[in-house]
Amino acid sequence: MEKHPVELLIAKADEAINREDFDALADMYTEDAVLVIKPGMNAVGRPRIKKAFEAIAAHFEHSLRVTQAGLHILEAGDTALVLAKTIISASNLPPTERKATYVFRRSHQHDWLCAIDNSYGHDLIDADQE
Amino acid sequence: MEKHPVELLIAKADEAINREDFDALADMYTEDAVLVIKPGMNAVGRPRIKKAFEAIAAHFEHSLRVTQAGLHILEAGDTALVLAKTIISASNLPPTERKATYVFRRSHQHDWLCAIDNSYGHDLIDADQE
Repeated sequence: MEKHPVELLIAKADEAINREDFDALADMYTEDAVLVIKPGMNAVGRPRIKKAFEAIAAHFEHSLRVTQAGLHILEAGDTALVLAKTIISASNLPPTERKATYVFRRSHQHDWLCAIDNSYGHDLIDADQE
Repeated sequence: MEKHPVELLIAKADEAINREDFDALADMYTEDAVLVIKPGMNAVGRPRIKKAFEAIAAHFEHSLRVTQAGLHILEAGDTALVLAKTIISASNLPPTERKATYVFRRSHQHDWLCAIDNSYGHDLIDADQE
């Protein structure tokens, strides 16, 4: 089966994280995109998202690896919701599965771009309620 | 704290489900919205979403009750991702929590409308892999 363009974009983004190409990575987000850095802390817009990934890379001693162990895409016109089992690992982190949720938007200029990047899934609710 | 307009819309939608006002409910969705009826079965567009809710109401013997036990909203421009702990119950179903994911879109004509309604959250991935 042919892969959905959003699945290909996620693979490209994971590769960009793994090789620390944060300019290429930032270009895969919309201008007003939101990245959840950790529950309660978001980065908004490409320049801040780029900086956040640089800080995350340093935190994981430049050894972060991101892969997807399962994806499901729901598409409604120019909007796509992605439910993902995302595996992250690093020299200081054993392989950890996150139930991630991503929203992508399609435009005439840019095809699909990531608008909301939340690798913490429903953990955000628990963090609100703590 | 003032409630987010998307949180108010979700409350209105839950009330519409509980009183079986499926015309009002369908109007809260975008024209091309996707509703996950169950893993592997989606309804697309308002007329089909309305029919799906009628069938769901019959399945639950006209006693379905939907409430939210927790919500977190992430907003990027005209797109909002909602992570929700949704509680459903009926005469033939004890209270059941679902980790739901909803996507809303804002337009000039309609303010916020639901574009993707997936009350099954990440269960869709497990269903793909079975």
